[in-house]
Amino acid sequence: MILAFLSDFGFKDPYVGIIKAVVLGINPALRIVDISHQVAPQDVISGSFILGSAFREFPPRTVFLAIVDPGVGSQRIGLLAVTEHYTFLAPDNGLLSMVFRYSKKVTCFSIENTHYFKRPVSDTFHGRDIFAPVAAHLSLGAEPHSFGPPCPDPVQLPWPEPIVRDQYIKGEVIYIDGFGSLILNIPSKLIQHRKPVRKQFKVNIKGMELSIFNTYSDAAKDKPLALIGSSGFLEIAVNQGSAAEMFSADVGEPVVVTVPKVLD
Amino acid sequence: MILAFLSDFGFKDPYVGIIKAVVLGINPALRIVDISHQVAPQDVISGSFILGSAFREFPPRTVFLAIVDPGVGSQRIGLLAVTEHYTFLAPDNGLLSMVFRYSKKVTCFSIENTHYFKRPVSDTFHGRDIFAPVAAHLSLGAEPHSFGPPCPDPVQLPWPEPIVRDQYIKGEVIYIDGFGSLILNIPSKLIQHRKPVRKQFKVNIKGMELSIFNTYSDAAKDKPLALIGSSGFLEIAVNQGSAAEMFSADVGEPVVVTVPKVLD
Amino acid sequence: MILAFLSDFGFKDPYVGIIKAVVLGINPALRIVDISHQVAPQDVISGSFILGSAFREFPPRTVFLAIVDPGVGSQRIGLLAVTEHYTFLAPDNGLLSMVFRYSKKVTCFSIENTHYFKRPVSDTFHGRDIFAPVAAHLSLGAEPHSFGPPCPDPVQLPWPEPIVRDQYIKGEVIYIDGFGSLILNIPSKLIQHRKPVRKQFKVNIKGMELSIFNTYSDAAKDKPLALIGSSGFLEIAVNQGSAAEMFSADVGEPVVVTVPKVLD
Repeated sequence: MILAFLSDFGFKDPYVGIIKAVVLGINPALRIVDISHQVAPQDVISGSFILGSAFREFPPRTVFLAIVDPGVGSQRIGLLAVTEHYTFLAPDNGLLSMVFRYSKKVTCFSIENTHYFKRPVSDTFHGRDIFAPVAAHLSLGAEPHSFGPPCPDPVQLPWPEPIVRDQYIKGEVIYIDGFGSLILNIPSKLIQHRKPVRKQFKVNIKGMELSIFNTYSDAAKDKPLALIGSSGFLEIAVNQGSAAEMFSADVGEPVVVTVPKVLD
Repeated sequence: MILAFLSDFGFKDPYVGIIKAVVLGINPALRIVDISHQVAPQDVISGSFILGSAFREFPPRTVFLAIVDPGVGSQRIGLLAVTEHYTFLAPDNGLLSMVFRYSKKVTCFSIENTHYFKRPVSDTFHGRDIFAPVAAHLSLGAEPHSFGPPCPDPVQLPWPEPIVRDQYIKGEVIYIDGFGSLILNIPSKLIQHRKPVRKQFKVNIKGMELSIFNTYSDAAKDKPLALIGSSGFLEIAVNQGSAAEMFSADVGEPVVVTVPKVLD
Repeated sequence: MILAFLSDFGFKDPYVGIIKAVVLGINPALRIVDISHQVAPQDVISGSFILGSAFREFPPRTVFLAIVDPGVGSQRIGLLAVTEHYTFLAPDNGLLSMVFRYSKKVTCFSIENTHYFKRPVSDTFHGRDIFAPVAAHLSLGAEPHSFGPPCPDPVQLPWPEPIVRDQYIKGEVIYIDGFGSLILNIPSKLIQHRKPVRKQFKVNIKGMELSIFNTYSDAAKDKPLALIGSSGFLEIAVNQGSAAEMFSADVGEPVVVTVPKVLD
């Protein structure tokens, strides 16, 4: 079985290794796959997006451990969420928002059964003392309800829905990836399922109008373009360059997609 | 069995992958867990702290491979240290100082038996040519004494002991983690086992006086605080921010903890 | 069996984890070893060097997955290369140049059999949709020729051969590692197999003349030196410092090695 692990711990400190040590001390056979440990420190929104764009690629029965936890040690709940195919462990702070958005049959529990914790529980590292041992025991077959009572109303971050009209779509940048590509809150289906065809759409950002191409190299080197990215969202990129740099754009930057009038 | 691996190799070059390739070529069943590979280049003191705050979380019988080695190829000894629960491989340059400080029944050997080396041995990459094959053979059951003669007096870095008086404790910053938290050389027992109670202590750094709270979010956002960190030391942090930035503090920065006079 | 994995995906985004998820969904028993994921974005030349200096350390039968792919989604071919000991998967853009240079009995195939792909195949993430499932099926025993027709003429990057004369060797910096060491295109055999002996050679860079020592600590702290690096090339380093910083040198910087006249 696979444990997929996301955090904002970075790679300098031993925190990621410590979590793995605790997990493997309980279930030595578990396979651990890192999703990312370079979520910006305590940036729950980015963490939610990264997890949300990755989890559906994992095999069924994968257990996910996601820790971006500015409220560690406070009264926030530790969450165990069961979906049709997966199980998730995370602080109840919205980190699972995109998982909930794309999952069916979600049931949540509050992690409270101290029997599974590593004691004494510190106030500052619940990853090591609560989430890691709970993840290991889950992977060994412990029932989700054995970790605590149902949690009917987990925290969900507001999702910036795009405004969709006949002649335009208004959206914004929701994530900037390591290549500097700007990922928008506009799902591909809003482009692909519409007539007229994709190439007639134009994507406007900071006064520049871009065409939607198939792939990066359809634009000349160092030229910007729009395309449908691999996570299913419209994306603004620069062939062999960084769109974030070229447009000095940050998360939240508004974008308008226009649909020119055409004869059907 | 687990091989826990720490180095200053970073992630850009293939050095970490090469070590793993050599190890798995000899013992394909070994589980490898990374502790950190972003120890500052050739910073033995930081490496010692990171290893020292992580190793006790690993299951018994774990083999540790630690390589921060500015003296590679010189006459420094390669060290094999056996403790009550673990085995460690490292250059004899003080990298194991905190391991020795927190371990019982330490026996050290000098790694000299070329039978276990990958030949020819380079002068610049003993990790690949000496430590990796020795780690693999150890994990397969080779006896520690078969790698070389006893090494009775391994290098130990001086540890900056805090000065403890009735009314104050003088300490310093010994490590700055990736969140910018300042970890002090003041172990939690100096605070927790004392009367008066924790909240009466004040932590003074660069003219500012901080209270000791339970966790980060006990302070307002962007406000500094002190707390007992997860590795068992007193720590100065900023809720959702970086104490290293706020205080422009570096390793060695002096800190004074004061104990106000109280009636018993 | 081992899958050795190199890319320019970095660690912030989930791309590396997604590839591993797809691979392990098909072959859960595969061991995955990361070579590097911090190849500079779309820098095929650096990627080629890192892969070329690492692959021979892996056990026979290792499958290599190498993805630095500025032309993803264009007409460039996906390549499957079989050598005497290994199998490689990479875009046909020169990323395997150093592998070809150091390998025997190379046979290449063009990856075209959509039966093995994850569908629908995106235009921007062939790593996930083509290379990952092909790697997994290869590791399970699928025959190389079952993935597509022979590819007789894969792309090969020009290699900057050093100019070798009796009294000097003219070379250049081909790679800068994470410690700031400057790796030259001058293989060690050009130094080691020659008379006079190594210490009589001088390495000239930016007006400074360096001796060739055995290891870093043969120079004083913060002083530059030349040496035979662990990947088999002549290298310019600074003991406990960065040669790239000291010399403000970049890839392509010319270097001249002189051989003083001596009596045999």
